[in-house]
Amino acid sequence: MSQHRHPGASGHTGAVPALPDLPEATVARLPEYLRALHNLAETGHDTVSSEALATAAGVNSAKLRKDLSHLGSYGTRGVGYDVALLIDQIEYVLGLTQRRAVALVGVGNLGHALAGYAGFVSRGFRIAALFDADESRVGEEINGLVVRHIDDLATIAAQEAIAIGVIATPAPAAQSVADRLVAVGVTSILNFAPCVLSVPDGVDVRKVDLAIELQILSFHEHRKASLTGIPASGPAAGLTALPGGLAATGTQEAVGS
Amino acid sequence: MSQHRHPGASGHTGAVPALPDLPEATVARLPEYLRALHNLAETGHDTVSSEALATAAGVNSAKLRKDLSHLGSYGTRGVGYDVALLIDQIEYVLGLTQRRAVALVGVGNLGHALAGYAGFVSRGFRIAALFDADESRVGEEINGLVVRHIDDLATIAAQEAIAIGVIATPAPAAQSVADRLVAVGVTSILNFAPCVLSVPDGVDVRKVDLAIELQILSFHEHRKASLTGIPASGPAAGLTALPGGLAATGTQEAVGS
Repeated sequence: MSQHRHPGASGHTGAVPALPDLPEATVARLPEYLRALHNLAETGHDTVSSEALATAAGVNSAKLRKDLSHLGSYGTRGVGYDVALLIDQIEYVLGLTQRRAVALVGVGNLGHALAGYAGFVSRGFRIAALFDADESRVGEEINGLVVRHIDDLATIAAQEAIAIGVIATPAPAAQSVADRLVAVGVTSILNFAPCVLSVPDGVDVRKVDLAIELQILSFHEHRKASLTGIPASGPAAGLTALPGGLAATGTQEAVGS
Repeated sequence: MSQHRHPGASGHTGAVPALPDLPEATVARLPEYLRALHNLAETGHDTVSSEALATAAGVNSAKLRKDLSHLGSYGTRGVGYDVALLIDQIEYVLGLTQRRAVALVGVGNLGHALAGYAGFVSRGFRIAALFDADESRVGEEINGLVVRHIDDLATIAAQEAIAIGVIATPAPAAQSVADRLVAVGVTSILNFAPCVLSVPDGVDVRKVDLAIELQILSFHEHRKASLTGIPASGPAAGLTALPGGLAATGTQEAVGS
């Protein structure tokens, strides 16, 4: 068969094999393939062509084949990929064969939503602890977990073997929370606060900024309008014509900071 | 001065100038620069070097200069970039000189958090309407907006000139919501449901999948463990040594679908 496990995993008993240093874009697509593969497995598919898997994951098939070749997976001509084997390979590479414990800091609206997000549990994670600095929130129970004070972080991080910290605080508190997470040994942080965090080498931070996603969409809306020649609607529409380019004059209320 | 507005914007009165088709990665970084620039402006800075701006935005300075050169902004040697001018240029390109109306569909936990997310308002967007298909939620007021039934989408989308749709429903409902948004003329969709949406050409979809972000971090945790040779902790640790590669055997509870 032409599917292989990733190069480092073949039978060195007791050792942790080195993982390939995959391109970041490939790493980002592996979860998409994984989700599509789980859907295929649940609907009774044993094999899948690269074209069908690429369509299900929303990428082009050449990119998918390249990504999977990094894992040593090439499929079988005329048959495609073995669904169960490819699930195992991707879950192994993503480190999902153990359920990682997540600490969530900040239980405002967003923190509440994250604490109740079923997708974390179903895809390899366990929200193990909730923290807040607001005494009025400490003690509240959300989805069976009691909110603890952030001062208890060190104790609980050790008890629960916290692997990943999720920051859902307001921006001004985020850096100090990141520092405290790093101090207790957390080396992966998912940051929902709209700010750039400084962390030491060896700590990975991923940022989710919901307004940035909207701003990127706004670019595409703006560009589509410019291509079709339909003037932008709204009070600022005429400002695109101002010479000298100070299009934001008089529109500060629309953009803020 | 060596800063210019983007090429298409110079004084064609009444026309909407064509925007440059920027690389997607550049578009994704512009909001980061914009946030850093607003912070600089608020703290009294009139100019900023490419190095200082790059640090504030968390990118390297060569990449920043390249990105801004796409907008026709090159800074001034020895002085740097004019903060106010660069804010105007980026806001113009991102289409933030008008406040875009957003419709949010699905007011569960995540929808509630999104409806109350101050970052949308402060950065150029207005949540103009909330929708749900659940009759028990219709009529609820969230942040001053009353939740409407999804069947009212067409009427309200026209009234409010909805530009962007945000889908915060469970996955099984997302495609049908996307179809309805497209049918009423929405051409930009931000999708929080964990699924791939099919949309016609000309409709832009951005997806935010919170579990995927964690899975990407999990890869880095796994890789760091493999590099330091520290065996993974937890019940699945020994499975990396199994020949034949079925590392997930017996760990299905940890990964689910």
